[in-house]
This record gives sequence, C-alpha cells and structure tokens, in this order.
Amino acid sequence: MSAPAGATGPAGPIETTGRQRATDPEKLLEAARGGAGGDRRALARLLSVAERGGEPARHLSRATAPAAGSSYSIGLTGAPGAGKSTLTGRLVAEMLDKGAGPVAVLAVDPSSPLSGGAILGDRVRMQDHALDRNVFIRSMATRGHLGGLAAAVPEAVRLLEAAGWPTVLVETVGVGQVEVEVAGTCDTVVVVLNPGWGDAVQANKAGLLEVADVLVINKADRPGVRETRRDLVHMLQLSRSMDWTPPIVETVASTGDGVADLLQAITRHRAFLEESGGLVRRRAKRMVEEAERLAVSRFTREVAGILGSEAVLKRFRSGALDPATAADEVVAEISRRLASDG
Amino acid sequence: MSAPAGATGPAGPIETTGRQRATDPEKLLEAARGGAGGDRRALARLLSVAERGGEPARHLSRATAPAAGSSYSIGLTGAPGAGKSTLTGRLVAEMLDKGAGPVAVLAVDPSSPLSGGAILGDRVRMQDHALDRNVFIRSMATRGHLGGLAAAVPEAVRLLEAAGWPTVLVETVGVGQVEVEVAGTCDTVVVVLNPGWGDAVQANKAGLLEVADVLVINKADRPGVRETRRDLVHMLQLSRSMDWTPPIVETVASTGDGVADLLQAITRHRAFLEESGGLVRRRAKRMVEEAERLAVSRFTREVAGILGSEAVLKRFRSGALDPATAADEVVAEISRRLASDG
Repeated sequence: MSAPAGATGPAGPIETTGRQRATDPEKLLEAARGGAGGDRRALARLLSVAERGGEPARHLSRATAPAAGSSYSIGLTGAPGAGKSTLTGRLVAEMLDKGAGPVAVLAVDPSSPLSGGAILGDRVRMQDHALDRNVFIRSMATRGHLGGLAAAVPEAVRLLEAAGWPTVLVETVGVGQVEVEVAGTCDTVVVVLNPGWGDAVQANKAGLLEVADVLVINKADRPGVRETRRDLVHMLQLSRSMDWTPPIVETVASTGDGVADLLQAITRHRAFLEESGGLVRRRAKRMVEEAERLAVSRFTREVAGILGSEAVLKRFRSGALDPATAADEVVAEISRRLASDG
Repeated sequence: MSAPAGATGPAGPIETTGRQRATDPEKLLEAARGGAGGDRRALARLLSVAERGGEPARHLSRATAPAAGSSYSIGLTGAPGAGKSTLTGRLVAEMLDKGAGPVAVLAVDPSSPLSGGAILGDRVRMQDHALDRNVFIRSMATRGHLGGLAAAVPEAVRLLEAAGWPTVLVETVGVGQVEVEVAGTCDTVVVVLNPGWGDAVQANKAGLLEVADVLVINKADRPGVRETRRDLVHMLQLSRSMDWTPPIVETVASTGDGVADLLQAITRHRAFLEESGGLVRRRAKRMVEEAERLAVSRFTREVAGILGSEAVLKRFRSGALDPATAADEVVAEISRRLASDG
C-alpha cells in the first residue's frame, strides 16, 4: 500500500528525508509552526521525538510548554467496532465545513507497538482529509515512552498546539485502562457506544462514563437506541452529581446523520468549560497527573534496574533477603544516587 | 447474623478481646505458632496488622521472612459466579479427607473495602470447615495497604506460614488486574471457568491463561464442556511454549464431582515445581516483584504528597510550570529528603 500524498506516517519516507534535515528540536519547531501552513515533515519528526521519550522528549516538552492551552483537544473513545474511525472522519469534515478547522488527528493504539494494519486501514477511509491541507493525521502506537502513552499523548498534543493547530482530535482504539487515561487527558471527552443491551453497562464498568463529557450512540439506525439511552440516563444519574450532564447524541457515522449535533454538543461543552473556569482547573489537574506519571516512571525504572540484578535474586533465593528490607534498601540507594546526581 | 464459632472475621469480637492482650507482634507471633493448635486470635490480630500496612506491617514482614517457603500456597481465581467459593469448600474438605491439612483460606475481595455481604454469604457455606480445627478462614478486603492487595496478600501468606499452616488457599473474587496479580503470587494458580462459548475467551483476555497452572471447567454437568475445552487447548497452544502444560479438570462443585482430580492436578503441579527447581525460582521472582511494588508505592506516595499541594497547582495554572520540569523538581526533592532521612 502506498501512502496517500498528504499522509504522515510514523516512519517511512519522512524519516528518510528527515535525515538530511535539521535535527535540532528548536529549529524543527520553528519550521513546524504556522499550523496547516507549517512544515509537516518537521512536525512529524518532532512527534517521533515525543513518541520515543527520554531526554530529547523532555527537552522538547520544555520548549512547547509556553504554548500549552492555546488549542482545544477532543478525545474520542469507545469499544472496538463502535465506528470511531468513521465518526472521526465525519467529525473532521463537519469541522472543516463549519470553518472550525484546521484539525490535527492523533490515532492512538496502545495495544499495538507497531502501527498495524487496522490503523492503516482506518486511515485509508480518511484519505480525502489526509489530502486536505487543513488536516494533519498521525498514528501513535509506541510503548517505549517513559510513562506510557498517557504521558506521550499530552506531549504530542502540546507539540501540535505549539505548531499552531487550533484543534486536536485524539482517537483511541480500545477501552482498556490506558485508553480511558489517554482520553481523559483531553479537554472534551466523547464516548462512542452502539445501541443494544449491554454496551452501556460495559462502558460503565470500564470507567468510561466517569470521564465522558459527550455520549454518542453511533449506528443509531439499528434497534435498541431507546434502551441504550435509558440505560445511560440511569447510570449517569447514579454515578454523577455535577454541574455538567453529558448530552447523549445519536449518530449514523456511515451516512453522516447526527454528526452536526455531535459537533454542537462538543462546542457547548467547550463553552461551558471556558465560562465556568473549569477548563483552567481541568488543565492544571491534568498537568499535575502528567508530572506524577513522569516522576513515578522515573523511580520505577530505577527500582526495576536495581531489583532486576542477579545479585538481588541470589539473596532472595538463599533466604537472606525479605521484600520489605529489599524495598527499604532500594529506596535508600536510589535516593542517594539521584540526590548526588542533582 | 452471628459468626460461627471458629470463624475469624477481620474485626469484630477478636479486636475487642485483643485489646486486653499483648500488642507486641513478636509475642503475638509466638502465640500464633503451632498451626491448627496455635492461638487463632493472635493470628487474626497479626493478619490485621499485615492488612493495614505501614511500619508495623514492615516490621512484621521482617519477623516472618525466615519462615518464607515453608508452606505451599494455592491461588483460586476466575469470573464471579464460576463457583469458586463452593469449589474452595470442596477442595478444603478433600484435602482434610486425604490428610493434606491443615489448611488456611484467605478470601480476597479487592473491589470491596469492607468485607461485604457476598463474602460473608460465601463463608456461611463453609461453616462446616470453619468449625473444623484444621481450617482457618479469613477475609481480606482492604485497600489501605501500601502497595495494595497484591502486596498485602503475600505478607498474609508468609504470616500463615510463620504460624505453621502448611497449606494456604487464596481465593479471589473477580477477574480484574488486581485479582490476576494476587493469584499470581501463589505457588499453584488454579483458574476456574464455566462451560459455554466466550468464557474461555474472556479468561484469555483478562490475562488469566497466562498465570494458570491448572484449569478447571466447573459446572461441567452443563452443556458446552467440549467446546470450552477445545477453546482452552487452542489458546494454550497459541500463547504458551513452556515445560508445563496446564491440565484441564472438569468439576461439579455442587456435588463434589471431579474435586479429587483437581487436588491431584494441584499435587502434580507442586511435584513438578519442586523437582524442576521452578519453585525456588518462582518464589524468588515473586519476592522481587513484591519488593518492587513496595518501593514504587513508597515513591508514589511521596510524589503525590508534593504534587498535590495548592502551591504546585497554582504554578501550573499560571503557566509557570510544565510537567517535565515539575517531574524533575519532584524527583530531586524526594531524593534529597529520603537520602537525608536514611
């Protein structure tokens, strides 16, 4: 399969070309600025830096920090097969039609370390947008990042902000803990369900209703819409007592029905957040969580490094060491080491 | 409901009586020794110490460490409704019949911070054993422990070892990540399924087949046993390439059918582990994981303590701080603090 002209894959031709170009993140960031008018190859290379993590990513993170909050991020999540990709495509088209572009799309698949066939297949359906100058599409599937995808995605979003993309759509593939966390790092979280008994209950179990700002019943031309809506209303009443009640929007992504309603619901939620001061609070809280993940990952890596040694295993095997003592020793050793580093 | 004579609840009458007794863990441990002949109130109080965590639990952990490896632990897990409680009751009875007692049972429910009705209800079915001098039953449902249940359970198991119980059965309620982790801390892991399409697939998704040493199709008098067995064989072939292939045992816990086969399968797995040297390796690896969890939890608590402050939130809100810088600052501060503590 050949990549569509405007598409930006995680590696491939971009990396090859990129090798002959500047590698300095500041220069790349300078080139990538200007949103839809910026250098997309530079942007793609920067996203690879964020994806790979480590010191270069942290350096980049400091460079993009001043731009934080200049764009709006929308997370789309829900069970596989719910029609998220098609809906994302329709939503992007609707935004462009309504003059709400340009839009950057991050397609996140935590379960696949390589961007696999499914994602590429989905992307094909979005080719018409990929060719559009006002859309930027990027897959993220790495597990290498320190702090995981839940840390890499906010960095990528900030990068897109710094590069001048006013709206970032983050689409996740599954409904595991990681996907819920990733979606939860966005300003507005859209949870996509299908009609039919059980889907709403599953979403509730997976913790999706807790993070949802807008609920979508996609494939609403199928039977069971009323029951699913009733289940959702019931569960929202039970689980939430807050100032924003997630609206429930019915869509048929394959025909585009209801997609305008979805965009309206997102816009209303954004207005609510901005007027109530909730947006500032939400973003600050998110940054605290991101810092937590980064710091804990740092310590976790150090802990695993020490405890993974053959010498430690030997002491455990011979009965000379118990877990509590080992933990105390490790905490002390890491603290000494990091304190003298600083 | 009144507690059966020999039952030992997490609090209740034991705590009340206990207040007039020794509180020194060493003295309590001395009193609890002797297995079925030891002081069960002392044992129950020690288990409460392990459950609550903190410095007293760490102190206790060091006192029980020399006994590590003197008993054999069996984990029973599987979806709610699979019949684990009934099967546990039958298995305990079979062990006592075959002279493989005494047996201590830990019933673990991570989803409930209080030991709720379900557990108590299950326990009622085991009353006949609770009254037996050769059985000790205890519910664990705390979330307060530093490092979670996955850290508290191995400590409780070591405590039962140190108190002279040669076999410890750990029964978990659900099939979440925590349950899989808890079951994985045992020497032999038994995964309980039911016949019918989908159950085997669910267990595989939940990561249960990866930790299973013995597979049970319970309620094997219902239709679908052959299909479930075929699914299991297929998935085991795909996912595992190792020296031990988990046997698949069919049981009907309500009648006791197949329970003797289950005990035999467990005994064979134990013999395999002991002869191959796998038991020593498995236990050392587990202690490494336990130490990891304890150390990481320690750091996590420190990180949350600093980042949870209003001062940090304010700096994030004003744009004066980015997550990467915050993480660096926090790592440095905690290291300095802990290094000077030590």
